[in-house]
Amino acid sequence: MNGAESLVRTLVEGDVDVCFTNPGTSEMHFCAALDKVDGMRCILGLFEGVVTGAADGYGRMLDKPAATLLHTGPGLGNGLANLHNAKKAHTPIVNIVGEHATYHIEHDAPLTADIEGIAWPVSHWVKTSADAPSVAVDGAQAIAEARGAPGRIATLILPADTAWNEASGTAPVPAVLPPEPVDEGAIRDCADILRSGEPTLLFLGGKALRADALAMADRIAQKTGAELRTEFGAARCERGTGRVAVERMPYIVDQALAVTGAFRHIILVGTKVPVAFFAYPGKPSVLIPETCRPHTLATVDQDIAGALAWLADELGAGDLEPILSEPERPALMEGDLNLESLGAAIGNLLPEGCIVSDEAITSGRHLHPLTRGAPPHDWLFGTGGSIGRGLPEATGAAIACPDRKVLSLVGDGSAMYTIQALWTQAREKCDVTTVILNNGGYAILHGELLNVGANPGPKAHDMFDLDRPDLDWVAMANSMGVEGVRAETAEQFNRALAAALSNEGPNLIDAVLPGAA
Amino acid sequence: MNGAESLVRTLVEGDVDVCFTNPGTSEMHFCAALDKVDGMRCILGLFEGVVTGAADGYGRMLDKPAATLLHTGPGLGNGLANLHNAKKAHTPIVNIVGEHATYHIEHDAPLTADIEGIAWPVSHWVKTSADAPSVAVDGAQAIAEARGAPGRIATLILPADTAWNEASGTAPVPAVLPPEPVDEGAIRDCADILRSGEPTLLFLGGKALRADALAMADRIAQKTGAELRTEFGAARCERGTGRVAVERMPYIVDQALAVTGAFRHIILVGTKVPVAFFAYPGKPSVLIPETCRPHTLATVDQDIAGALAWLADELGAGDLEPILSEPERPALMEGDLNLESLGAAIGNLLPEGCIVSDEAITSGRHLHPLTRGAPPHDWLFGTGGSIGRGLPEATGAAIACPDRKVLSLVGDGSAMYTIQALWTQAREKCDVTTVILNNGGYAILHGELLNVGANPGPKAHDMFDLDRPDLDWVAMANSMGVEGVRAETAEQFNRALAAALSNEGPNLIDAVLPGAA
Repeated sequence: MNGAESLVRTLVEGDVDVCFTNPGTSEMHFCAALDKVDGMRCILGLFEGVVTGAADGYGRMLDKPAATLLHTGPGLGNGLANLHNAKKAHTPIVNIVGEHATYHIEHDAPLTADIEGIAWPVSHWVKTSADAPSVAVDGAQAIAEARGAPGRIATLILPADTAWNEASGTAPVPAVLPPEPVDEGAIRDCADILRSGEPTLLFLGGKALRADALAMADRIAQKTGAELRTEFGAARCERGTGRVAVERMPYIVDQALAVTGAFRHIILVGTKVPVAFFAYPGKPSVLIPETCRPHTLATVDQDIAGALAWLADELGAGDLEPILSEPERPALMEGDLNLESLGAAIGNLLPEGCIVSDEAITSGRHLHPLTRGAPPHDWLFGTGGSIGRGLPEATGAAIACPDRKVLSLVGDGSAMYTIQALWTQAREKCDVTTVILNNGGYAILHGELLNVGANPGPKAHDMFDLDRPDLDWVAMANSMGVEGVRAETAEQFNRALAAALSNEGPNLIDAVLPGAA
Repeated sequence: MNGAESLVRTLVEGDVDVCFTNPGTSEMHFCAALDKVDGMRCILGLFEGVVTGAADGYGRMLDKPAATLLHTGPGLGNGLANLHNAKKAHTPIVNIVGEHATYHIEHDAPLTADIEGIAWPVSHWVKTSADAPSVAVDGAQAIAEARGAPGRIATLILPADTAWNEASGTAPVPAVLPPEPVDEGAIRDCADILRSGEPTLLFLGGKALRADALAMADRIAQKTGAELRTEFGAARCERGTGRVAVERMPYIVDQALAVTGAFRHIILVGTKVPVAFFAYPGKPSVLIPETCRPHTLATVDQDIAGALAWLADELGAGDLEPILSEPERPALMEGDLNLESLGAAIGNLLPEGCIVSDEAITSGRHLHPLTRGAPPHDWLFGTGGSIGRGLPEATGAAIACPDRKVLSLVGDGSAMYTIQALWTQAREKCDVTTVILNNGGYAILHGELLNVGANPGPKAHDMFDLDRPDLDWVAMANSMGVEGVRAETAEQFNRALAAALSNEGPNLIDAVLPGAA
């Protein structure tokens, strides 16, 4: 077998059995190997940001890596933004990049680029295979690196001749490093703080937002009077009825400071001290006052659930009944379609087991409370701040969980970065309902202009408006084989959402909100 | 004035008066400055690949830089592929990237990334401004760096506080380094070779493909019996009636070797020894046989036109009349729409002064001969091999040359990478006619599978087909405010192209070719 086939077989044997790809000439032997090896599902994206974003959504849902297959430096470049998001989400990804044949690189052909240089800023591990017999070993290592706690981006660069030359077979995946052990001293210190009675915030991130870990955090809070908050941008939060409801740290600096200002201690569980998304003139970067002291219970690469359980035991809270969300749905509204009526419909209709991919930006911040009492579901937020995550992430989540409905909430500005994802959803019959929260512009930037103290005029505002021309979202969806409908009133949206969620996807709703034409 | 305003003023004073942008929070003060400074035209793209590709098209046509304005590391990442293409095209670009405030970077906020690390592989010069008073000086330096021969990518990274803090005013652009002087020894050596009577190829690239330089190369060829060829991927070639017609070096390795095999010498004029686009098993990387010796008349960063004129003088050829293309148009065809009838229509109808942006890949290789006798026009090819260049490049060319028609020839596979460019064309009323050469797939990859000796099966081929679902190009264009029409026969295409070229753009023709559904 050649190097490409040895890699595909190694991936499948290593439980990496989905590959999102946009291949080129240097990846031909990998593609040809797909017909020789059973068990690898290969999914085409028409733009590399779809490929890497889908791998992020897949990895978030299954806690195991998909592979990507990208074409040389520029293909990797196109996938960079969603690899950045995935890296910040601690998503495991085996990121495979084709390269010129080893002997061809020195000739500076058109596509020659510094692939390792492009890869490093978004990778935890980068390796270029030296020859065909190394490919399987390197691929197995990449799987282990990707699976290392808390989930990492392992970039394997595959020169074309390492793919087409003869290899010696597959390679076993080396032992995956377990999470860093929890520090007993940290447990005792945090327990002491919680026993002190001083106002304390448990600040939760990463895998602390899974149902069991949240239940443990709630027991600690009940026992000690501590309060709970999640990080603003959580990769995946298990919520809804039967789960512990925790509010997010606000995005707005002053609002976040109002939250943290009430506490003398902030205990970090799978996350870091909260910091502002951006700097603003005259505002602090760190979102806790000097009177609030941070303490780390568990870092993101430690056994977070284990740390919470240990702490609960230490506090004698392990047997308490956690306070779980009761079923409670907002009523459907009538009249104008706005964030309130749209949120009511989502809260009213969200199906059990739904995966909500939230890239609604400004429009989405208020949706969380309205879905607290909906049936159990997962909510995926942006972690790296790069827009264009939503549609690909929803695609990957649907591939990962074919039995679950995916609700993709995305701003009109956000949707345009990686709109090609709709085609992949149509091709793969992904059960995704996309809601375009259409307010006719980059609403967040109109607000941010004021937040940073700029004094904008018409030319500046013109850079944040998406009218001239208006985007026709139904035509856009149809052009890529996805059904679409436009909703201009609450009743229309209610009907459209109910229909979309009860049919197999993909489908799209253009939710026309104030601001849109 | 703040740092942002000092930069915008410095750019305008330095003759950089168009800025392609997709801004975010860290670029707000730059946007706000647009309303305080006259003379800067700011153009919004809904994806950063549109932004950087448009800057490439603009710079190719005007030989002067546009600015970009991108949002942090991920925004730069999204623009990377077309910066790669622009770098290989030697296009001048002042590439401005917003960054977190200097004091905010250490806090590892979601968008924090190694921006310099991402920038270097696609830049000739990278600098992060240290403080507000430095911004104007750094901006002026960036202009000078971008304008340095042969045209360079200068990336200026602008932390938000350097934009909003008080600056001291504008800065003058430092002297731009002139092209490297031509080497007298190279002139004499090349003259000796050409006088020897041994079979010699003048291999032309870069600014050797402008009309005057081509005329000089033709005089040399007439005098000495040398033959002329251009590089396969030329940034911009002036051609049509009244200009010297030169064939391209073929893409296919065996075809290229058949060309160069006839020569004992290859004289390089503004380009390098031809190399294969990709490596293929058993084929050489370098596209000249060992019996053919390369000699450099002028490198791409030298005075190429001057070197040709000097060489012509040295040979006593300077006064010869160049052989120029005579008017000659293919007749319109009827019946099936295929590459032949499509090419005939383009050759028949191409208007004077047209700018042809060619990203037709496999479908476009035969179009060149059919347009040799069309009125004078420019032809822009891919230089860096990264797909997704065409629609943005056409957009930028239209902004650069508002009085000229732009014909954007793009494969269906290629168009999807940066399809958002259509919206910018509609917003800016760009006079662009886009022809989608719709063959229903990545046709080049079906061919490349065979070229690399892979043995493909159905799963491999499935990765190169764009059916399931078919793309509806008219709906796609309409969704972004661009008129579109579908042409399935030669007559339909002839009528559609005549109408599109005689109306103001933007408009789009879906040219349904064999292979498409």
